[in-house]
Amino acid sequence: MTFTVRILGSSGALPAYDRHPTAQVVTINDRPFLVDCGEGTQMRLMEQDVRKGRIERIFISHAHGDHYFGLPGLLSTFQLLTRTKPLHIYGPAVLESLVMIHLNPYKEDWSYPIEFHVVNPQEAELLFEDKDVEVHSIPLKHRIECTGFLFREKSRSLNILPEKISEYGLDFKDIKVIKEGGDFTTKEGNQISNEEFTKPPHVPRSYAFCSDTAYHEPILDQIQEVDLLYHESTFMEESAERATKTGHSTASEAATIALKAGVGKLILGHFSAKYSNLGGILREAREVFAESHLAIEGGVFELPLVRAESHKLST
Amino acid sequence: MTFTVRILGSSGALPAYDRHPTAQVVTINDRPFLVDCGEGTQMRLMEQDVRKGRIERIFISHAHGDHYFGLPGLLSTFQLLTRTKPLHIYGPAVLESLVMIHLNPYKEDWSYPIEFHVVNPQEAELLFEDKDVEVHSIPLKHRIECTGFLFREKSRSLNILPEKISEYGLDFKDIKVIKEGGDFTTKEGNQISNEEFTKPPHVPRSYAFCSDTAYHEPILDQIQEVDLLYHESTFMEESAERATKTGHSTASEAATIALKAGVGKLILGHFSAKYSNLGGILREAREVFAESHLAIEGGVFELPLVRAESHKLST
Repeated sequence: MTFTVRILGSSGALPAYDRHPTAQVVTINDRPFLVDCGEGTQMRLMEQDVRKGRIERIFISHAHGDHYFGLPGLLSTFQLLTRTKPLHIYGPAVLESLVMIHLNPYKEDWSYPIEFHVVNPQEAELLFEDKDVEVHSIPLKHRIECTGFLFREKSRSLNILPEKISEYGLDFKDIKVIKEGGDFTTKEGNQISNEEFTKPPHVPRSYAFCSDTAYHEPILDQIQEVDLLYHESTFMEESAERATKTGHSTASEAATIALKAGVGKLILGHFSAKYSNLGGILREAREVFAESHLAIEGGVFELPLVRAESHKLST
Repeated sequence: MTFTVRILGSSGALPAYDRHPTAQVVTINDRPFLVDCGEGTQMRLMEQDVRKGRIERIFISHAHGDHYFGLPGLLSTFQLLTRTKPLHIYGPAVLESLVMIHLNPYKEDWSYPIEFHVVNPQEAELLFEDKDVEVHSIPLKHRIECTGFLFREKSRSLNILPEKISEYGLDFKDIKVIKEGGDFTTKEGNQISNEEFTKPPHVPRSYAFCSDTAYHEPILDQIQEVDLLYHESTFMEESAERATKTGHSTASEAATIALKAGVGKLILGHFSAKYSNLGGILREAREVFAESHLAIEGGVFELPLVRAESHKLST
């Protein structure tokens, strides 16, 4: 039931001051997803004791080097570790050729399948789902095709109170109905409300990764009320012109997006090498949105599990 | 008059135990040459305070990722720093396409010229020379085309003793003749030996980089009596079979090459991830060749300037 976002890299295109290019591990119910893979990501994974062999899906926002130059190295390392588990990579159409050209020398001994999934940069899509989570793309506004990613937990079934099973002599069929929100009818024909048998469900959690992007209000619909938002803030307002020109955002713009979307918490990242100290970026964002935080290598943001007030299952 | 070899990465293909993929900076008379460029090299350059903007020539041994995956990132960083100075890259024919495919998104704003020089993997060639140094390729024996690099200082002119200039009233023409080894004839017709005017010259220094390679005696001719040899030693003798199969050397083999070539000092490197502790590798090599040393990230090997015993200029 974990849901965490681990920062591997917080730097913009030019690494500086021990900040590294973009990469994150989003872990949901013990399953790690890698988001972006800048140069050196495999070293960051080692430093932070992330079990990289467990990664089955990698999401790449766009084909600027600081977001994928670590991919050939990581994939080669998987091969050297004789991985057999399939790996799925979601990203722009051009990504497959950019990566596979480097794996040619090893292809005869290759030990695991790699499947590339092309992400449409124009429209939000459901990229992946399993019983726990859905991952959607978020079209962004950058110099080249670029998408963010929305991780949304699925609604869970209701937790049944164990003592009620013996009290009412519930069988498997009864339990299934109750877990899905149904009421229970006794042999005598008395209908007993679902709330008598269950605890309210947990509220499904959500995380949106938005980098790289200029200020872009069309994303608001998709990221409305997410618990946690990562929004790039390459610059401060004093460089607003440069931000616009290069397809990036200022800290103030990132915070405005967070405010308008009503998110729970904002992570700022993708910092320009011009800032040796990030205090100004944080202050600028907090003037707009108090729950702003800096991405720092090794930082882990945990989304707490909150029980809903009502027993109603969200859809 | 510096001649140093700085280790940026000592690891084999699989980075482990804080060891990073192969990269070195060879600095001769304050001019840095980069040799190999594994993933994360630009971060290593920053950590070790190497002024990367001064690098004008990069030599890549072969197209296995652990020897060049850092190149696209370093080249992009040069661009972001608005480099204008040309960059020369020496390596296998395939390298240009492997690197340039990643720079496409930036080509409209590209700030500096890159020139690729294809290294012939079959024959030793003079790749580069200036007034101070020659760089030659060394054909190696690996699973794919691979060459090492030999850095050899050129013979320097003789150092004239300053007090002799006024004593004999030497003019520019006289000084030139004496520096090149000639004697001096006074107005009175007395011939005075060159040794009266000069200190013996420094012995030209040399460094050979040989990685990746199986044990390969044909390199002995080229690396005979170099002052410093880097020879890969991926494995120990207990894995000799695996070394042969993968085109690598054992510590004992590296030391045997050093011994047979009569080099001054041996650096061992490109260590397999199977060795958490490198003591065994070092002991194995030193049983064969006492002046064996481990490559360690941040380590700098300095080639001292030694004055020749005679005034004769070496050729």
